[in-house]
Amino acid sequence: MFTQPFATLRRDGDCLIILDQTRLPWRVVERRLATLEDVAEAISAMRVRGAPLIGCAAAFGVAVALAAGEGGDGALDRALGVLRTTRPTAVNLMWALDHMDACLRPLPSTARREAAWAEAEAIFAADAAMCAAIGAHGLELLRSLQEREGRALRVMTHCNAGWLATAGMGTALAPVYSACVEGLEVEVFVSETRPRNQGLLTAWELAAAGIKHTLMADNAAGLLLMRGEVDAVIVGADRIAANGDTANKVGTYLKALAAHAAGVPFYVAAPMSTFDPGTACGESIPVEERAAEEVFFIDGLNEEGCPRRLRLAQKDARAVNPAFDITPAALVSGFITERGVIGVEDLADFLQGVRI
Amino acid sequence: MFTQPFATLRRDGDCLIILDQTRLPWRVVERRLATLEDVAEAISAMRVRGAPLIGCAAAFGVAVALAAGEGGDGALDRALGVLRTTRPTAVNLMWALDHMDACLRPLPSTARREAAWAEAEAIFAADAAMCAAIGAHGLELLRSLQEREGRALRVMTHCNAGWLATAGMGTALAPVYSACVEGLEVEVFVSETRPRNQGLLTAWELAAAGIKHTLMADNAAGLLLMRGEVDAVIVGADRIAANGDTANKVGTYLKALAAHAAGVPFYVAAPMSTFDPGTACGESIPVEERAAEEVFFIDGLNEEGCPRRLRLAQKDARAVNPAFDITPAALVSGFITERGVIGVEDLADFLQGVRI
Repeated sequence: MFTQPFATLRRDGDCLIILDQTRLPWRVVERRLATLEDVAEAISAMRVRGAPLIGCAAAFGVAVALAAGEGGDGALDRALGVLRTTRPTAVNLMWALDHMDACLRPLPSTARREAAWAEAEAIFAADAAMCAAIGAHGLELLRSLQEREGRALRVMTHCNAGWLATAGMGTALAPVYSACVEGLEVEVFVSETRPRNQGLLTAWELAAAGIKHTLMADNAAGLLLMRGEVDAVIVGADRIAANGDTANKVGTYLKALAAHAAGVPFYVAAPMSTFDPGTACGESIPVEERAAEEVFFIDGLNEEGCPRRLRLAQKDARAVNPAFDITPAALVSGFITERGVIGVEDLADFLQGVRI
Repeated sequence: MFTQPFATLRRDGDCLIILDQTRLPWRVVERRLATLEDVAEAISAMRVRGAPLIGCAAAFGVAVALAAGEGGDGALDRALGVLRTTRPTAVNLMWALDHMDACLRPLPSTARREAAWAEAEAIFAADAAMCAAIGAHGLELLRSLQEREGRALRVMTHCNAGWLATAGMGTALAPVYSACVEGLEVEVFVSETRPRNQGLLTAWELAAAGIKHTLMADNAAGLLLMRGEVDAVIVGADRIAANGDTANKVGTYLKALAAHAAGVPFYVAAPMSTFDPGTACGESIPVEERAAEEVFFIDGLNEEGCPRRLRLAQKDARAVNPAFDITPAALVSGFITERGVIGVEDLADFLQGVRI
């Protein structure tokens, strides 16, 4: 049984308490979000991050917003509108907000405040259960790989899709945590994930959970895969189109290409809410362009161990900074979901048969 | 006519003066190397870097070493031995040292000191001429691309293979500089090149030469290529095997995969001395594993504009840090050399017909 070493989100009265992920891995700092604007800022500034956790935070954001007033349609519309614009690529966020809308809209204004908290808590609990199910299905994949290899497995991941990114044990890392609970030996190659260095969050959360891991520059992925030093790549996803094309943190596509070239399985672990049947293929997925400052500046610790920010680029520099890239379905060996592992060839039937 | 905005290497009496590239782009600092050990340290610590410049520096290193004594066989052997171990992947370095050995060994000890300086200067001048020739051949490629596209060209590069990395106008960037001298509009996408961030050197040297450029995280290469935002990728090389497999800065292979998938030409620009007919294929090229500290620490400027180093990773972190990767020949559209542009299919004949 896996439990989060720290709570990623929790209610406190009419406020939401989050673990501020922009301070990690340097400092463990909680932040109290008391208004709709606080929650929106926390999501767009990536204080709360990870597609599933963003969905949960947005649901709680609706509750925080309604708690401040009478819970009328105007307040509900405003909360949904503000939160919808925070991270345009994340389909879970849209899903969570649609769900809150559908649950709260039919209720009288007076009933919406408590119902919003209850629905947000329900989304959070469902997310934790979803993670556990992804872990269980992914464990079977790792178990068969391990039986074939007969030694400790080496899994490569990108960005952070572990317990920090969800309400539970994560998505991409859920199979790893499940494997470790079962006594399977798994080591994780953690890609730095420039420009925001979410790989450092992954290293921190793996350390907190006692899992052996090795950091690497994003650039090292190709050589490690080519040399046969990786048994499987598992990543999360921010949006999966109907044909299986997958939007995930920028750099994912390069790992998928290298895994494919090396014959190493490349899995996308994501809840069903990440599938977007309304988007036909990757080309239609909007890719968030983030501020050039993310490329120009970097956070770390100085010699005294205090968090500091350094400038990397010249003052007159220009940068391009897409937050995501698109991995074509043909490069994906399978989708590890809470309903099982789905091959790309079965995706259309599966999505048709399942009410997401 | 292109001239280096700063001298990358120059003789001063019995010393070698280098532009210390570990201080760039923050500070323009020259460093005086007075002993063999100074030169060896400057190469292994990457104060001098770039495959062609390493070769030049090693040749000057022999001259510095011999200047300190009588120039006997012992001193020559020691200089060659020490310098050979500084960067194991760079074949230019081996080539330059073999060349110095062949020139100096037959001479009487007393004649070796001045001959060593003269040979090192000759290697330096030949390198500058080689760069200009690579630029001229690469210019033809860019000119035909430009005629097809009918607009400003967008070239992506990786690491730093410009004037900072050579005695002249560079290798990978030589076609860009030649194009700009000729009035062709070219913009460069500059990949950060973690962990050592040599892309920041490229941005600095392009700015010094007045060339429009855009920084990007290494991870962004796949999406930019997929979206058709890049017309050509040009990189340098540290060693090219007989079959065309190319060792270059780690991350090159990922760009080659993405360029191939997008149908974008991927060129390797390198002097003939980078070809190693004695190495059959990429698997036989030794890949230098560098210190984990390169992944754990990063240099930049603090708020006051002073160079500082930050720690990125936790104190107990582990890292893997290969300095190079191998791009299979099948992904290379052509090799831009001082003798012309060679297709992979013509490489064997070309190498057989040419005395390198």
